[in-house]
Amino acid sequence: MSLTTFSVDRSSDIPLTDQVCEGLISAIHATSVPESQRLPSVRRLATRLGISQFTVSSAYERLASRGIVVSRAGAGYYVARLSKHLLLDETAAQPGQPDSAVTFVQNVVGPSLHTIAPGIGALPPEWMEGALPPGAVGKLLRGETSFSTPAPAQGLLELRKQLSVNLSAIDISAPPTQIITSTGVTHAIQLICKEFVQPGDAVMVEDPSNMVLHAQVRERGAKLLPVPRLADGPNLDVLERLASEQRPLLFFTQSVLHNPTGGNISATNCFRLLQLAEKYNFYIVEDDIFGDIQTTPVTRLASLDGFKRVLYVSSFTKLLSPAVRVGYIVSPQPFVNSLVERKILDVLSGSALLESLVVNALKSGRYKAHIDSLKRRLARVRPAALRALASMGIEVALPDSDGLFLWGHVPRQVMVDRLVDEGFQQGILLTKGSMFSPTGSYDRHFRFNVAHCTDARVIDLLRRQCQPSMAAGATGAAAQAAASATA
Amino acid sequence: MSLTTFSVDRSSDIPLTDQVCEGLISAIHATSVPESQRLPSVRRLATRLGISQFTVSSAYERLASRGIVVSRAGAGYYVARLSKHLLLDETAAQPGQPDSAVTFVQNVVGPSLHTIAPGIGALPPEWMEGALPPGAVGKLLRGETSFSTPAPAQGLLELRKQLSVNLSAIDISAPPTQIITSTGVTHAIQLICKEFVQPGDAVMVEDPSNMVLHAQVRERGAKLLPVPRLADGPNLDVLERLASEQRPLLFFTQSVLHNPTGGNISATNCFRLLQLAEKYNFYIVEDDIFGDIQTTPVTRLASLDGFKRVLYVSSFTKLLSPAVRVGYIVSPQPFVNSLVERKILDVLSGSALLESLVVNALKSGRYKAHIDSLKRRLARVRPAALRALASMGIEVALPDSDGLFLWGHVPRQVMVDRLVDEGFQQGILLTKGSMFSPTGSYDRHFRFNVAHCTDARVIDLLRRQCQPSMAAGATGAAAQAAASATA
Repeated sequence: MSLTTFSVDRSSDIPLTDQVCEGLISAIHATSVPESQRLPSVRRLATRLGISQFTVSSAYERLASRGIVVSRAGAGYYVARLSKHLLLDETAAQPGQPDSAVTFVQNVVGPSLHTIAPGIGALPPEWMEGALPPGAVGKLLRGETSFSTPAPAQGLLELRKQLSVNLSAIDISAPPTQIITSTGVTHAIQLICKEFVQPGDAVMVEDPSNMVLHAQVRERGAKLLPVPRLADGPNLDVLERLASEQRPLLFFTQSVLHNPTGGNISATNCFRLLQLAEKYNFYIVEDDIFGDIQTTPVTRLASLDGFKRVLYVSSFTKLLSPAVRVGYIVSPQPFVNSLVERKILDVLSGSALLESLVVNALKSGRYKAHIDSLKRRLARVRPAALRALASMGIEVALPDSDGLFLWGHVPRQVMVDRLVDEGFQQGILLTKGSMFSPTGSYDRHFRFNVAHCTDARVIDLLRRQCQPSMAAGATGAAAQAAASATA
Repeated sequence: MSLTTFSVDRSSDIPLTDQVCEGLISAIHATSVPESQRLPSVRRLATRLGISQFTVSSAYERLASRGIVVSRAGAGYYVARLSKHLLLDETAAQPGQPDSAVTFVQNVVGPSLHTIAPGIGALPPEWMEGALPPGAVGKLLRGETSFSTPAPAQGLLELRKQLSVNLSAIDISAPPTQIITSTGVTHAIQLICKEFVQPGDAVMVEDPSNMVLHAQVRERGAKLLPVPRLADGPNLDVLERLASEQRPLLFFTQSVLHNPTGGNISATNCFRLLQLAEKYNFYIVEDDIFGDIQTTPVTRLASLDGFKRVLYVSSFTKLLSPAVRVGYIVSPQPFVNSLVERKILDVLSGSALLESLVVNALKSGRYKAHIDSLKRRLARVRPAALRALASMGIEVALPDSDGLFLWGHVPRQVMVDRLVDEGFQQGILLTKGSMFSPTGSYDRHFRFNVAHCTDARVIDLLRRQCQPSMAAGATGAAAQAAASATA
């Protein structure tokens, strides 16, 4: 196939220029046309296709602007050196089935690779659309002149003050001088790891918990000490034994809306955990990334502690917008300067634009309105998701909790890996419980995202694997659960 | 002083509500008013000040929205727990005189702490204002629906393709699959350090060169091997000796518009350096952060090498906008996946919003127009800056080069530290040459920013220190140089 063996359809709705572009791209992409081959002259191609020279010339110019062809003065157009690379599409880079924190992230960020992803930890994009209205952003930019200077390394003071105000509403006293902004919670944890974790150290984490955290601690050359997570917080007996025997310096916990179980720590356990931190001289990193969608009052470690033993981290990427990569650390005073220094050596400073967007969303009340709408939507889908899972015989650990996650235990007959494989083939991403476990436990659990459990395709997949003997009647029941969810 | 010992001025142009807010803030800020003290009732304060209850009530509400006071149902208003922290202003956090890369960065990012900063490495904010027009950004946001999904970990494919097109214009063949976006060049270098540098390693850097790079390499526990930078690139004889004796794995260089000297590597040295990399098996990190403002053709290592031995890094933070924290690495294929994994464990992914802003600036031609305007402005101020420095007896190393920096050697009689101290007292930030040197050399050099050398206050300061014996006539000459620069 040469660069001229395509034709155009004058009766089509597709503009002729587009047809010429597509014809040439297909020829370059699909065949062995060598880089730097000359394109037919404008006149010749126009004559062959029976169209105007203007149309061909427009098509060539458009391909040139995309870098796919290059124009050489007086010598016409040539296929560009990297043209094939430029014709890549997103799917070319599709990662394989997740088998690590890194491949999991690669599966869940970026343009949706999956038709549906009941295993992901994000809210559905369509739930987020109102959170960052272009009109408000445009207005902010017009009123704001500071984007030609960088944000201070510690973060915009206006944002740190506003965070302080917002945190006081959940009874956390966070002085703006002890707040350091970051590029999301992953970055906050990375900065804390750089500050506290040396190769060979032991670090306590919950089992199960955030898989990216495990990979971050291991990347620092440290050892994970797993503390089982119970319904009302970490197992403090195990934690005390580990703390007394191995003297770890850090314990990472998600006290509220724990990922993946959805549970909250009890006030009693908060108090005892802080006493243990004092007794065994360790620090606690409290990750509160989902805390704003908790609907009933809860006690947080940072409220009781007043930033002596607790580093509190949170972010706006999960609940406001994944494009607004702004998170933060509230730190005990002695570590503030050093954390800022580590941030400088990592990313220099944050984006004044993104940090101002957060200030604006908080001050205008838009963030609160958006959170309220998320809470309503979650409350609406949760009962249907629970019914759908129950109808498959999947037991959910903490059905009465809030938030995004259902920690489900599948029936005995389910072949877990086959379920995951079949889902992946169908574009349905499921996340195995063992991926959240530093000990590889929870191999009959899955983390389900409440927003995606009632999709008919997910239900079909689960039904086939969970209850292979069930008749069509059961499908009907599950579909009914799905229907009532979207009503 | 209690919370009611202030008065208002009805004849003032300042609205009464503002006056009441300011009065209360001063009282809270300046005195020992305890946190949780009750504010006077609305009626009482209104009577005492002789103003309406509505005005006092408005003032209380405004302070409550800033978190400075809290309203308790039925019990009135109280001073909030962190009120004093919330009254902080930027200057409270002003860092001391720079004595390290970290304190230097703290001095130059954020709201301008200095009246004038001839020592900084950034373009004047007013030169950057047209680069990111709010109208264009607002339009982009309205047309773009992808901000409710995160950017792929490697970076938006559309941006990577566009970078590939742009790099081909400077003769660099960078396949989009080998480009990884980062949060600026500092972050790009951090990712490369994580990939290549282990504690105890030796890493070659230019002397002088970027002080943040030195701090990053040292933070990894590695040793710096300084390679003197000459007018036409690194001293390759010294480099070869170091490479053969110590077998370092990396060499960091700014081949074009070197910071701080402003020089470019010669084509011959490019070729020989790549041969040495092959012979002694090391990789080269080519930082091209200022390359787009180079006006005459230059040879880059990445052009010759084709991404076998070179990792090329650049960014849009310096030249497009400090709020757009988007940089990138072009890597040899074997390191791409690992660098993406390290990015995931560091920041998870970039901001689709910021990355789209860059795509938009590149595709629309706005970036090119902005760069052209920067080049014109730099060409306009440079001769005057050179004349001003020459009139003080300051010798500039490479007067005929392009870009932002003049590497100046001050006359023998200048007491360098006194000059820096006096500048700092006056809000003028100068940057000593020794801060760019891993060996502490260049202690009679300064890095001058061409955009700030002709300010009358800078000239005054330099004149007093460089030529203390000079009469008023010389001041006149320097001022004349300044005047002709701004004309």
